[in-house]
Amino acid sequence: MRQNTARRTALLDAAIDALADQGTRKLTFRAVDARAGVPIGTASNYFANRDALLAQAAAHVHVRLAPSEDELAGMQAAAPTREVVREAMHKLFARVSQDRAGYLALLELRLEATRRPELRQVLMDTAGQNIHENIRFHVAGGYPGGRQAVASLYLAMSGLITEHLTLPEAWEWTTFPELIDQLVERILPE
Amino acid sequence: MRQNTARRTALLDAAIDALADQGTRKLTFRAVDARAGVPIGTASNYFANRDALLAQAAAHVHVRLAPSEDELAGMQAAAPTREVVREAMHKLFARVSQDRAGYLALLELRLEATRRPELRQVLMDTAGQNIHENIRFHVAGGYPGGRQAVASLYLAMSGLITEHLTLPEAWEWTTFPELIDQLVERILPE
Repeated sequence: MRQNTARRTALLDAAIDALADQGTRKLTFRAVDARAGVPIGTASNYFANRDALLAQAAAHVHVRLAPSEDELAGMQAAAPTREVVREAMHKLFARVSQDRAGYLALLELRLEATRRPELRQVLMDTAGQNIHENIRFHVAGGYPGGRQAVASLYLAMSGLITEHLTLPEAWEWTTFPELIDQLVERILPE
Repeated sequence: MRQNTARRTALLDAAIDALADQGTRKLTFRAVDARAGVPIGTASNYFANRDALLAQAAAHVHVRLAPSEDELAGMQAAAPTREVVREAMHKLFARVSQDRAGYLALLELRLEATRRPELRQVLMDTAGQNIHENIRFHVAGGYPGGRQAVASLYLAMSGLITEHLTLPEAWEWTTFPELIDQLVERILPE
């Protein structure tokens, strides 16, 4: 059977929505076919097995949540200040807010990976690489604070996004944009 | 049927282990009975329904992960310095490392709560209260930085714990104790 890129992407988007809605355990080829509105048997033509599907879904989430090329070019054209990082964190938050399913799917995969070493290896090749790439970008770009600062900010933003997506009511005494400003100002030197 | 506290606790511990091992979807009274090694039908005598079980399991995780009374008394006897908070964060990390199932169960419940509003209300009464209590303790105790600082540290530690439990391989270029020191030193004023 011939494959095409648009259909593969549609299948991955369907897999991500299914992961966010129902968790990893219910993710089958058949569920993905149904959600993508394609004939039963389609997903099995695109992915060798369920792990390959999960691996590509994780990689695709990182593509969906990545900054646009325009945004990256804008960052690289500007001086590497704390203010530029602050704006980038607000944009990340906006992307995650627009694409809740993507980040929730990643959290589902992380939990499932605690039970399945093969999936953990897959996540190292996607989520792990994403962490390393974030750190590399910050250090190579000469942004304030270096490696330990960007690692601290990464951890804090991960915690903030999880709260935002799962229990925002607990944070109604402040706002997430205010918390983001606090994190950047506290963690990165000026 | 008579109830007793030790058996209730054993059932909650079994529920937490089952949540961490298999996720929320597979958590049934029968699975809890089996894991606790008690006769089928026991859990249904202790909990009115599945939501009541999940609510009490979430509350029990916070009891399991809370600092001991000795530790709290020690903190309150000392001056409210950044160093005291740093030590408390290392102790929290040690407790979570010893009780992986507890924190993983909470993450499972948070994800399930995105799909079930009733469970979200339950988590507000447990995880949400825990957040508010952490902030209150820090502010009332006069620790450095006040409310926004402790909120920032809470978010960062949550992110760190999730990485530690789900994808520690991505952080092998540093160590979690080093990251904890960095978070405290960056986020709290001296």
